[in-house]
Amino acid sequence: MNNKYTLGMIGLGTMGRNLLLNMADNGFAVTGYDKDARMLQKLEEDGKAHNLKGFAVLEDFIQSLELPRRVMLLVPAGQIVDNVIKELIPLLDKGDMIIDSGNSHFTDTSRRASELSEQGIHFFGMGISGGEEGARFGPSMMPGGDKTAYNAVKPILEAVSAKVNGDPCVTYIGPGASGHFVKMVHNGIEYAMMQILAETYYLLKNGMGYDNEQIYNTFKKWNEGRLQCFLLEVTRDIFKVKDEKSGGYLIDVIKDEAKSKGTGKWTSQVSMDLQLPIPTINESVSCRDLSKFKSLRVALAAALPHAAEKIDNPAEFEVQLEQALYFSMITCYAQGLHLLTQASEEFKYELNLQEISQIWRGGCIIRAELLEDIYQAYKKQPDLAHLYADASLQTKLNEIIPGTRKVVGHAIQNGFAIPALASALTYYDSLRTANSALNLTQAQRDFFGAHTFERTDEAGIFHADWNSNNL
Amino acid sequence: MNNKYTLGMIGLGTMGRNLLLNMADNGFAVTGYDKDARMLQKLEEDGKAHNLKGFAVLEDFIQSLELPRRVMLLVPAGQIVDNVIKELIPLLDKGDMIIDSGNSHFTDTSRRASELSEQGIHFFGMGISGGEEGARFGPSMMPGGDKTAYNAVKPILEAVSAKVNGDPCVTYIGPGASGHFVKMVHNGIEYAMMQILAETYYLLKNGMGYDNEQIYNTFKKWNEGRLQCFLLEVTRDIFKVKDEKSGGYLIDVIKDEAKSKGTGKWTSQVSMDLQLPIPTINESVSCRDLSKFKSLRVALAAALPHAAEKIDNPAEFEVQLEQALYFSMITCYAQGLHLLTQASEEFKYELNLQEISQIWRGGCIIRAELLEDIYQAYKKQPDLAHLYADASLQTKLNEIIPGTRKVVGHAIQNGFAIPALASALTYYDSLRTANSALNLTQAQRDFFGAHTFERTDEAGIFHADWNSNNL
Repeated sequence: MNNKYTLGMIGLGTMGRNLLLNMADNGFAVTGYDKDARMLQKLEEDGKAHNLKGFAVLEDFIQSLELPRRVMLLVPAGQIVDNVIKELIPLLDKGDMIIDSGNSHFTDTSRRASELSEQGIHFFGMGISGGEEGARFGPSMMPGGDKTAYNAVKPILEAVSAKVNGDPCVTYIGPGASGHFVKMVHNGIEYAMMQILAETYYLLKNGMGYDNEQIYNTFKKWNEGRLQCFLLEVTRDIFKVKDEKSGGYLIDVIKDEAKSKGTGKWTSQVSMDLQLPIPTINESVSCRDLSKFKSLRVALAAALPHAAEKIDNPAEFEVQLEQALYFSMITCYAQGLHLLTQASEEFKYELNLQEISQIWRGGCIIRAELLEDIYQAYKKQPDLAHLYADASLQTKLNEIIPGTRKVVGHAIQNGFAIPALASALTYYDSLRTANSALNLTQAQRDFFGAHTFERTDEAGIFHADWNSNNL
Repeated sequence: MNNKYTLGMIGLGTMGRNLLLNMADNGFAVTGYDKDARMLQKLEEDGKAHNLKGFAVLEDFIQSLELPRRVMLLVPAGQIVDNVIKELIPLLDKGDMIIDSGNSHFTDTSRRASELSEQGIHFFGMGISGGEEGARFGPSMMPGGDKTAYNAVKPILEAVSAKVNGDPCVTYIGPGASGHFVKMVHNGIEYAMMQILAETYYLLKNGMGYDNEQIYNTFKKWNEGRLQCFLLEVTRDIFKVKDEKSGGYLIDVIKDEAKSKGTGKWTSQVSMDLQLPIPTINESVSCRDLSKFKSLRVALAAALPHAAEKIDNPAEFEVQLEQALYFSMITCYAQGLHLLTQASEEFKYELNLQEISQIWRGGCIIRAELLEDIYQAYKKQPDLAHLYADASLQTKLNEIIPGTRKVVGHAIQNGFAIPALASALTYYDSLRTANSALNLTQAQRDFFGAHTFERTDEAGIFHADWNSNNL
């Protein structure tokens, strides 16, 4: 029995393979299974130092694992996960664990957990972020589900995860599908951050007229300050990369039509079911989809031209742009965390936002200097209603908002498309509006649909006969 | 047999009752059924002139209808529709028709149509718009499904519908659940129009400092021009209505927390599945949901204050505000119609946008002067890719965009929350951007996730080793 493996991975693509190599680096006896012989071969090649070997026959793979078995899946989300589980069930014993580490939709995870629990199998869903590099050298991991099962893999997860100040970037997220839910929201925040970086790039290039070298230098400088984050690092480095074929920069020959795998969309759709607005994430989903209408965009650009003015004071504008980017980043996190607050209540996930912001500080795609402030905000006040309500962030907001208004206002005047930056600011203004105009909405609904309204000065539900009350 | 009724209505709430009265006015022999005796009584009272009577026993109601039976449902969407259908099936004969005229989700309509078709029952889904008044005196109706069944109710629908230039505001929309789909998008447009009207009201009140009488007069003046539409009429009239209790205007004592019935949300969620952005509709859904965080808004308003400047030239600003509202209205329709174009392709609905804009010109909540221009645009060019691509609308857009930029820019600078107005403009700018910044998005995705990219100068799928290419 002692010669058996501690954990087995199904799916030896880049993510699965790299995570397995990471586990082997940390001294765990692990193995893998893949139907594709080339994947098994790649595992052996990359894992030569640890004598890592995989199986081509599922039965042999399962028999090689110590009891209770720890089977991790890293296969594409959707039907494939169900197919693999179906194949696994007859081979497993009660008490075995299946850990789905792919990007499954949280409703699928809920369903699978309850189906498998009837059969005595512990199922839990775990989101992993950090891309290929993260999986290989330390990702951020978001496991949710059966806590007993979690404890049986905890030492492995803590060992392989990224570390920040010695703390592992993994924690038990909560019951049910909370792990995949939190990972989904992580990806929604990622979408929004990528879009605000794209819009910032657009303003640097078309507003300020910077070339790629100047853009690189600006992002480099910013990344040395409070904006420091993985996505800004990546963005900065992109502007250094040359292209052999064209002789210029690679960025300049990449098509401006963005693809997506759907996790951003899921976040937006779920937020609408929870009636918890995340407009900047919504806009970033829209921007990717809109980018595909290339021929329409080209035609409309010709028919609906707009001349942009020169920026009066470029040095000042650059400072304001850094503020706008910082403000928008705060807002991306604020919207995502607000959604987690609501989901926790709705789905009884018992989410601990302090721990979640703590494990996001390292390993994952949205890791950022700013997450330290966010972590501190929730540490100070675990039931913080909204990130904007944190006193020390409020000091920052009051400082950077005037510059943000200048940037967004300039783009609006000059026809530069900045849907996400603008939505972050209009979201902020909506949330700091004590008395909004939505009393009109309720009046309209009551006027034409008799949908009733509430009053500010009296409890109850009211309906007015709007036509006969006319003076 | 000749004494039997031509059509029977299930659900005698305000909408069902009013539609039945409308049919009776037009000379049709109709009846109704409701479990609630008070509803039957109300039908008798309101329909005294036509000797209208309803049934309290479903079997009797069904037996009173001529063959093939025309049974219309006007009950709340969701499970209740399924329950009613379940009760109906044993009582119906092959060839009978069920017409669901409520606000059902189009996916429910698809499912019900295929379930009932197996039993030889013609089912179709019909969206009705116009509120209580519309139902009573002429709504706009969007029926979709089995065309044979449609022909059997066509004379009734055409008689009771609103008329514009003599044309009935009803047409066969298309196969499947297309009727409910088009009605859902109608409601999405309605949400967006209501939100831009709310934001315009906010700017009149807080930006220009207008009192309710000035607001009434402004809306009245605008409604006499190109902005003329039902929702502006309603909005205008709201500002005339006084409140007995407070002695002031009713609008001023209505709570600014808006409710919704979900059709706007459905439109946004479906648009994301179709990858067809409708950001202004999304923002209007967000605004309603955000309005409910009243205590948070009040707290943040105090902590994050922003002083607004006086408007230099109020007369000029008012002109620009009219332009911004007109531009945003065009954009609401443009987004909704673009979604219909995509849905028609995806679901094979064979939608005729010329006919749809034609039947929206009267009877429905979104009826507007502007729909005449839209109708003409699709008449001229049935395969118009986007409303912005119509030459005569482009002339208008180029004229009103500068003023729109002034209004949105002013609100951005002064902290007035205008999420929907801003999103309409950033959507417009995104669509008139020939070369967007989304090449960066693809570069980032390839950098950290090896998701590949396309090139502008060569066909194929590419991946770069971003780190090793650094200079």
